[in-house]
Amino acid sequence: MDKVKVIEIKKSVFADNDRDADSLRSELKSKGVYLLNLMSSPGSGKTTTLIRTINLLKDKLRIAVMEADIDSDVDAVKIKEATGIQSIQLHTGGMCHLDAEMTRQGLDNVMLEGVDLVILENVGNLVCPAEFDTGAVRNAMILSVPEGDDKPLKYPLMFSVCDLVIINKMDVLPYFNFDLEKCKEYVKMRNPRARVIPICALNGEGVEAFADWLLEEVTNWKQ
Amino acid sequence: MDKVKVIEIKKSVFADNDRDADSLRSELKSKGVYLLNLMSSPGSGKTTTLIRTINLLKDKLRIAVMEADIDSDVDAVKIKEATGIQSIQLHTGGMCHLDAEMTRQGLDNVMLEGVDLVILENVGNLVCPAEFDTGAVRNAMILSVPEGDDKPLKYPLMFSVCDLVIINKMDVLPYFNFDLEKCKEYVKMRNPRARVIPICALNGEGVEAFADWLLEEVTNWKQ
Repeated sequence: MDKVKVIEIKKSVFADNDRDADSLRSELKSKGVYLLNLMSSPGSGKTTTLIRTINLLKDKLRIAVMEADIDSDVDAVKIKEATGIQSIQLHTGGMCHLDAEMTRQGLDNVMLEGVDLVILENVGNLVCPAEFDTGAVRNAMILSVPEGDDKPLKYPLMFSVCDLVIINKMDVLPYFNFDLEKCKEYVKMRNPRARVIPICALNGEGVEAFADWLLEEVTNWKQ
Repeated sequence: MDKVKVIEIKKSVFADNDRDADSLRSELKSKGVYLLNLMSSPGSGKTTTLIRTINLLKDKLRIAVMEADIDSDVDAVKIKEATGIQSIQLHTGGMCHLDAEMTRQGLDNVMLEGVDLVILENVGNLVCPAEFDTGAVRNAMILSVPEGDDKPLKYPLMFSVCDLVIINKMDVLPYFNFDLEKCKEYVKMRNPRARVIPICALNGEGVEAFADWLLEEVTNWKQ
């Protein structure tokens, strides 16, 4: 297995996370680096989605990934092996989310020179990560079909802070009681501006729409 | 829809959660009430599993359910309608877990007279709920097949605090890359004493084994 850098990040010392997040965003803007915060439940397919997306975009953008996990470095290794891009692992030491200062500690360990896009794969959790602005330009989340179409009702904050909701594992739709139209309605209740993109990360269907959204986002940010 | 009691619980004022949990457990022991803390990711099928299990046990035990949710009362209503048992909803006000004091606030609203078993359906989250002893006699968790067999590697604490791991959605095993034997090994790495029970809550397969485990647990506790 490839070796990846593993960073043990520590709890934030800053009291005002929102201010710190804004200042991180300004720094990134001045460096021309776009940061995406990607959230989801455990097992929704974040890593597989990222590998597909990075392979579609890596000739157009220089990309780095930060994988946050309580323990283990399997995701960072998987991404490095499958895409060849810069990939580091952030250990949160049991913490259930990342805030702006923790994200900054991660970014300090990324070689940002020439990088256009950094994707932060947040801890698998629909509750706590939604409460902390990481300093990312946008929040996106992945909901997978087996989790159920009612999740926007049960985890309102997560869906209201996300500008993009990816619905993954569309290939198993026939085996689950999941109503895509109803789910889209629920997402709109939480955030009328949110874009919904159904995909199947396993076979790649729909991933191009996510890659296109990301490319346009990064291009606009760098102007 | 049936009306269910909705309780807004507040953050704990106790500094020492472990001591408070032990004292809650002693009180429950003296009343002959068994408390099970059931945890999982969002969408793993906790509510469906509970409905099946309660319907198998309700002639043998008097059961009450406390459903913890950030928002909404859909789960408590669903359980009340499907089983007829006492079911209350705990609103955590954005909190991502329950501690012993919050559990006690819930129990204060349950009519415990004659009740043998209270099941606490914790907030859907594999991280934070594992860190707080609720005062339950046992912790159990549900992992569903679509989430992946590697979850014990990624959420070590959750699996080490649970004495029972239910593997749900076994009916969709053919459509996912999930190795049951590998998963059992990973669970054992985290907790060698943990029992693993594969089920399909949707069609009821395997649920009897969970009901039997629970009946034996409650019987022993009340001796």
